[in-house]
Amino acid sequence: MKQFISVKDVRQPSELMKLAKMLKKQPFAHRHYGQNKTLGLLFFNPSLRTRMSTQKAALNLGMDVMVMNFNSDSWTIELANGTVMDQGTQEHIKEAAAVISQYCDIIGVRTFAGLKDVEDDYGETILKKFIEYASVPVISLESATLHPLQSLADWLTIDEHKAHSRPKVVLTWAPHPRALPQAVANSFVQWMQVADVDLTITFPTGMDLSPDFTKGCKVTNNQEEAFQNADFVYAKNWSSYSNYGQKATGHEDWIVTQYKMALTNNGKFMHCLPVRRNVVVSDDVLDKPMSIVIEQANNRTYAAQAVLLKMLGYEG
Amino acid sequence: MKQFISVKDVRQPSELMKLAKMLKKQPFAHRHYGQNKTLGLLFFNPSLRTRMSTQKAALNLGMDVMVMNFNSDSWTIELANGTVMDQGTQEHIKEAAAVISQYCDIIGVRTFAGLKDVEDDYGETILKKFIEYASVPVISLESATLHPLQSLADWLTIDEHKAHSRPKVVLTWAPHPRALPQAVANSFVQWMQVADVDLTITFPTGMDLSPDFTKGCKVTNNQEEAFQNADFVYAKNWSSYSNYGQKATGHEDWIVTQYKMALTNNGKFMHCLPVRRNVVVSDDVLDKPMSIVIEQANNRTYAAQAVLLKMLGYEG
Amino acid sequence: MKQFISVKDVRQPSELMKLAKMLKKQPFAHRHYGQNKTLGLLFFNPSLRTRMSTQKAALNLGMDVMVMNFNSDSWTIELANGTVMDQGTQEHIKEAAAVISQYCDIIGVRTFAGLKDVEDDYGETILKKFIEYASVPVISLESATLHPLQSLADWLTIDEHKAHSRPKVVLTWAPHPRALPQAVANSFVQWMQVADVDLTITFPTGMDLSPDFTKGCKVTNNQEEAFQNADFVYAKNWSSYSNYGQKATGHEDWIVTQYKMALTNNGKFMHCLPVRRNVVVSDDVLDKPMSIVIEQANNRTYAAQAVLLKMLGYEG
Repeated sequence: MKQFISVKDVRQPSELMKLAKMLKKQPFAHRHYGQNKTLGLLFFNPSLRTRMSTQKAALNLGMDVMVMNFNSDSWTIELANGTVMDQGTQEHIKEAAAVISQYCDIIGVRTFAGLKDVEDDYGETILKKFIEYASVPVISLESATLHPLQSLADWLTIDEHKAHSRPKVVLTWAPHPRALPQAVANSFVQWMQVADVDLTITFPTGMDLSPDFTKGCKVTNNQEEAFQNADFVYAKNWSSYSNYGQKATGHEDWIVTQYKMALTNNGKFMHCLPVRRNVVVSDDVLDKPMSIVIEQANNRTYAAQAVLLKMLGYEG
Repeated sequence: MKQFISVKDVRQPSELMKLAKMLKKQPFAHRHYGQNKTLGLLFFNPSLRTRMSTQKAALNLGMDVMVMNFNSDSWTIELANGTVMDQGTQEHIKEAAAVISQYCDIIGVRTFAGLKDVEDDYGETILKKFIEYASVPVISLESATLHPLQSLADWLTIDEHKAHSRPKVVLTWAPHPRALPQAVANSFVQWMQVADVDLTITFPTGMDLSPDFTKGCKVTNNQEEAFQNADFVYAKNWSSYSNYGQKATGHEDWIVTQYKMALTNNGKFMHCLPVRRNVVVSDDVLDKPMSIVIEQANNRTYAAQAVLLKMLGYEG
Repeated sequence: MKQFISVKDVRQPSELMKLAKMLKKQPFAHRHYGQNKTLGLLFFNPSLRTRMSTQKAALNLGMDVMVMNFNSDSWTIELANGTVMDQGTQEHIKEAAAVISQYCDIIGVRTFAGLKDVEDDYGETILKKFIEYASVPVISLESATLHPLQSLADWLTIDEHKAHSRPKVVLTWAPHPRALPQAVANSFVQWMQVADVDLTITFPTGMDLSPDFTKGCKVTNNQEEAFQNADFVYAKNWSSYSNYGQKATGHEDWIVTQYKMALTNNGKFMHCLPVRRNVVVSDDVLDKPMSIVIEQANNRTYAAQAVLLKMLGYEG
């Protein structure tokens, strides 16, 4: 695998999910693959789960890890070609990516959407330029529009908790005080489309995701209808795609509550975390066994480990 | 050992001190205990000795280490239960502690006193909540009111340097331009009470420590009297407990000097560092062989290593 | 080797360069030297290449690495002797260096010139004090006036790319929007004087380097004349030495371009990076095979590895 920034980079997604499942049972069984190999993790944005779980995944494989907070540890990066760099930017991404490729066998990059320019974000400028100039495999640690390590962990979690085949999975928009990227939602939709699940997406009018992701999906603006018979409810806020980057106002009632969860088929509650309690979801859901958010976070390690192991040449 | 936040968590403190002493002689003899084990170090506040010595201790035991500066690397933490999280906090400590527990076998947490609300600080809100929601052992890397890794290292240092049994140990308040927590002093008192030493505490009128810690101790406001025949002088500033969090003014003469050290029984000078030279203690003490502050810092490694090794299941 | 802050610390510089060359071929052949050894990297300033390549070098040798961003992770350092530390500084370098020496087997320190006080900078106050109080070997990760790991990597790069013995090497001043230290230039001159090369230094009138470094060197203010028949062109901005720390104005035409490179003997372009594109050098040079800046960065790993290996006792 040369890059992992989207489900499209994976030839057999369900095999990758099963590899993650196997690694969860035997996390230390492939340490020889990582010997004398170094993972570089570059953060342009804050991170807890991704930072720790991806490190842990690499350590489980016997890799060394170098972590860099790009904004504070290093130089300001220029992205545009042909610029006369006499202003704030100090290093061009051409050099940064090429240089880091020489110190690392695999590179992970985390960079959030700016939510100002849809073409910039959906063009995945930073990540794609980084990949263009890098000479080693690159893993997205969440990019402007996708978060594939999260989605792979989500899939593993659904697979572990499903009571029957082809479970009903609902992705529901949820309230949030700030405008957030669409990355987690886009990515979840992308991966659920290759999983054997029955996916429904629900959001308030005007809070559509990009049609490039949702075309062919069941979509409704009626949250309660969507929850009927759901086996899994995945909550996530995102800002508007059509009114790009704007946050919704007046939809506080889209919070996921115990009452709404009662509409489901004994459904499990999912969220990628961090989650704003009593805004996105109420305590009476999060603190009950129906919530599997902590297990989702746990599975981040094995999702990352599966991707790293494939990049290290594992063919099994 | 399930937690290490106070001497009360240790069944046989003197055995733990002796274990640290043994590890100092054979730092690499127990690497199999740490194999495939990960220590997570979470810093909410600055740190040099704790950061490096605890990492080194874990590396000596063959553990992997992941370090996170919580405030800059990750999300803002909510502590209160039931909050509607629509303001600044981004992640509840419930999720943070539970999630990090899945990536780490042992977690260290450093969090200083706010010095505004005595009940908040002495309730050890952050640390206790973290432990409540964590599912792996937690080590205090200094909390609001205690610093047990420091005290264990201090005890080891006293044990190494004592010329006779039951040495006289003096804890003296010292001047400082800022209001500091009482953690190091409280903790030192707590550990000296289980050590075989003769402890005297001295501070200017009004700069009492919490009576919960000092009850049963010899206390005097006469520093020179306290220094008489001392074998060890441990200097530390702290802010007022009774007038909570206020710094003292007008006690610059409580600085430890060569003149005062001459009152002791060829006494050794101790401090946890960092130390303000010529404010807390004069150069003519710190730069002389009577100062054992560097050896105290060295012993931080073996104190941490002893605690980690016990948490890894060592029974010897 | 007890310290590595200048070429003068190296008994046989060409042997060290050859060791780096050998390690590039067998990076993992000396892992037993690093076993149970810890490298501490202390950054007072930003870094990408030095941070990652020095870590990688240590990992290649089987060492453990602890990285600290001194300004954000730790305490504010006092340098002066005898100070009454009742102001902003929190820890004296005496304690910091002595303490860190107990947790690390080798320490790397990065600290830039302040460019305000020539005596302060050229006295290498921080680095020299650190070495004075440290009890383990210290490596400069770039200091106020020198950057020896960079120069050693540069030499290796020249050695790898030279078409004939005694190549002509030109160090040319280049424009930059900010005032930069002289460290890279000083250091390059120092190392080229012990290498078997024909060195010419060129800069605009008034932008001289310190005569302590350039004495005995060919120097010209005519850049195009200097480029004639050059085999290697090393570009770097520096601020004025005589008008200490001032940046040049009105010399934008000192940029290295394809046109100027055509004056050379099919010369290679070198720069330590990060580089301001189209200010220091034009895209039409950097993006062509004549540019060997990425290989220079690659060689940073092996330069650091050679120094570390010598410090670990390698005699081969």
